[in-house]
Amino acid sequence: MKSGLSFLIAARRCEIDELDQLARTSELVSLIGRLVHALQRERGMSNMFLTSRGARFADQRGPQIAECIALEQEVRAGFDQLEADNHRGAGTGNSARLFSRIAWVLPGLDALPGLRRRIDALELKPAQSTAAFAKLVAGLLSVVFEAADGATDPEISRLLVAMFNFMQGKEFAGQERAFGSAALALGRSDEAQRLQWLHLIESQERCFQVFTDFSGEAVLALWRNSQPDAEVAELERIRRRGAASTPADVPLSQAWFDCCTRRIDAMKIVEDRLAADLRALCERKTVQARSELQEYRQLLDTLAPQAGALFFDDADAQSAAPAQFGRHLERSVLDMVQEQSHRLQAMSDELETVRASLNERKIVERAKGLLMAHRRLSEEDAHKMLRQTAMNQKRRLVDVAESMLAMADYLPMLDRAPPR
Amino acid sequence: MKSGLSFLIAARRCEIDELDQLARTSELVSLIGRLVHALQRERGMSNMFLTSRGARFADQRGPQIAECIALEQEVRAGFDQLEADNHRGAGTGNSARLFSRIAWVLPGLDALPGLRRRIDALELKPAQSTAAFAKLVAGLLSVVFEAADGATDPEISRLLVAMFNFMQGKEFAGQERAFGSAALALGRSDEAQRLQWLHLIESQERCFQVFTDFSGEAVLALWRNSQPDAEVAELERIRRRGAASTPADVPLSQAWFDCCTRRIDAMKIVEDRLAADLRALCERKTVQARSELQEYRQLLDTLAPQAGALFFDDADAQSAAPAQFGRHLERSVLDMVQEQSHRLQAMSDELETVRASLNERKIVERAKGLLMAHRRLSEEDAHKMLRQTAMNQKRRLVDVAESMLAMADYLPMLDRAPPR
Repeated sequence: MKSGLSFLIAARRCEIDELDQLARTSELVSLIGRLVHALQRERGMSNMFLTSRGARFADQRGPQIAECIALEQEVRAGFDQLEADNHRGAGTGNSARLFSRIAWVLPGLDALPGLRRRIDALELKPAQSTAAFAKLVAGLLSVVFEAADGATDPEISRLLVAMFNFMQGKEFAGQERAFGSAALALGRSDEAQRLQWLHLIESQERCFQVFTDFSGEAVLALWRNSQPDAEVAELERIRRRGAASTPADVPLSQAWFDCCTRRIDAMKIVEDRLAADLRALCERKTVQARSELQEYRQLLDTLAPQAGALFFDDADAQSAAPAQFGRHLERSVLDMVQEQSHRLQAMSDELETVRASLNERKIVERAKGLLMAHRRLSEEDAHKMLRQTAMNQKRRLVDVAESMLAMADYLPMLDRAPPR
Repeated sequence: MKSGLSFLIAARRCEIDELDQLARTSELVSLIGRLVHALQRERGMSNMFLTSRGARFADQRGPQIAECIALEQEVRAGFDQLEADNHRGAGTGNSARLFSRIAWVLPGLDALPGLRRRIDALELKPAQSTAAFAKLVAGLLSVVFEAADGATDPEISRLLVAMFNFMQGKEFAGQERAFGSAALALGRSDEAQRLQWLHLIESQERCFQVFTDFSGEAVLALWRNSQPDAEVAELERIRRRGAASTPADVPLSQAWFDCCTRRIDAMKIVEDRLAADLRALCERKTVQARSELQEYRQLLDTLAPQAGALFFDDADAQSAAPAQFGRHLERSVLDMVQEQSHRLQAMSDELETVRASLNERKIVERAKGLLMAHRRLSEEDAHKMLRQTAMNQKRRLVDVAESMLAMADYLPMLDRAPPR
């Protein structure tokens, strides 16, 4: 039969397994970040290519697509590795949800070559192409979200939450670039368009706020440096002009695209830094946990026979032990167990706090699910409906989603999937 | 490279692994329930044995101790099995916390023979013996708590929460039996004693309330039948007499002990039923998940080549596929992925709701941790201080703990363990 100390070691070993798994997931998250960035560039170029009926960005698209394909292979290999690791038992609590997200995004990657052929042939409108890329990027980001939600170490979770929000904010910035380019080039401007533009600005600002809340001073300094005042002024100036009714203005559209691209490329530097920090943190934590495990193991060799004799001391039910030898060592083993237990509890509490910041997205997902069941809508349409309501009511998406959930009991269900 | 469908299968396989792990943990929980019940009986007998200076229960203690030893061996084997399973990779997200709880309770089991020798020799006061057994039972129940908190399936989690609360309520009933026996036999009765007795009654009623909230009609009927009106009337009558100032009354103490014992033994029937329900639920869920996995696997053989072609359909970016063959099957694969994702999300939401009921205990634990750091108290003393405050202020333990946590920022920390 095993002693208490060997379970102390087993608990440590579990933590190390989780850290190893987190390190692998974090690598995958960084890789996904690079693929998303490349796809965002491809989306921007495809958008300009389609808007100009093939006149612009025809040369740059080819190398960009090649870069995307290379990164896609790396990400797919990362997915496969995750699945292989899990198969040989190195899974975490949310592996099922993570795999389900991967299962969702892979058909999107499979469908990319077909999408590109249709863009080559100018068969798509710019908005259709942009929507398709946005759907794929959303799928990739949901993998990152699940990785952040499943992290079991609060410090690593904190960095993953910062990273997810940064990536999501950058994606809203990318969508704003595409939206603004098309709006300025076509020169239409109505209230609905103005509101949608505003929605994209507010969404990215909210994401960057969470990123700011969860990031250290060094990263924040980098973030501020990446957004020089002159660039921000230029961005705001074009945003303002876009909001007014203007005629089609191709040079302004190009200036907007370039300004946004510089901004998004500068964001990439912050993202790379976040990825590097994440890698360093995982390594530091793993090294520390391993060295502590080593200490525990050495203690086990010394102490195994005495463990337990002092358990009832606090209950005042123990006489002086027959042999005094080793008593203070036993005391220290019981202290170690208690310390470990409190440390794990504190970690779990902190984790709960960090994860709470992911709730906003979960609330929106839940409201979408409700709409899908209640109105028999597709996921896309449910999201559009929520967003439209938010824009009409000038409220935040999450507030509309919350009101909807609060009313859930009053909505008759048209169609509910049978429980499985 | 693997397809989306193979990750759909991987997600299912993770769920099955988790269900298998839950089934093993649930077996262990049932076993712990049986050991706790046997230890409660041994505690009661030891208490009467010590109170009567060895005159009563001398004959019954031997067989009871033998039963405890046999069950202890089974529980230890269960712990070892859990560790071995985890070593070969079948762990869940909270294995570290679970093992840490086991590491805490094992020295207590190691110390049992020494405790029994001191009871044999009449070296302990009844209250010391009772406190020692209570500490051991609390350790065992904290393993059950962690198992309930770590369950990843909401239905199983629900049953584990019901079971934990039932076991904890039964333990308070056991403590009340010991407390009342001693109080009636010694005949002292002051306000502090009256309040502590009240505290034990309220604590058990709160646990049974949670159990009631989380249990189905069949179990609740069994629960009601296990507490016939005549028994409850007898219980309440002696409680009332205990609250008044009475002289020492050994026959009343014996009547109280017998009445409580009948009540606790009847609870054991409900507990056994909960254990049987838990076993059946785990089996049913596992069988169902396996048969669904089988279906997915068959689909994979049929469908792998076509997956993905329809991903961008909603984004309105896809032409009619060159080959119509298999299109509705592809649609159904994407539907399956989406359905799985929503099902997992709904499970996670429901799990959160079920787990919220465990928060009360976590709040008390957190407040204890705060007191330990702030006042340099032992865990026991921190608990006593909280309980004393609750009794003095006539408030619930959890409310006192919550007030304490709310004030945390105003408390200077005397001693904080360095972060690890």
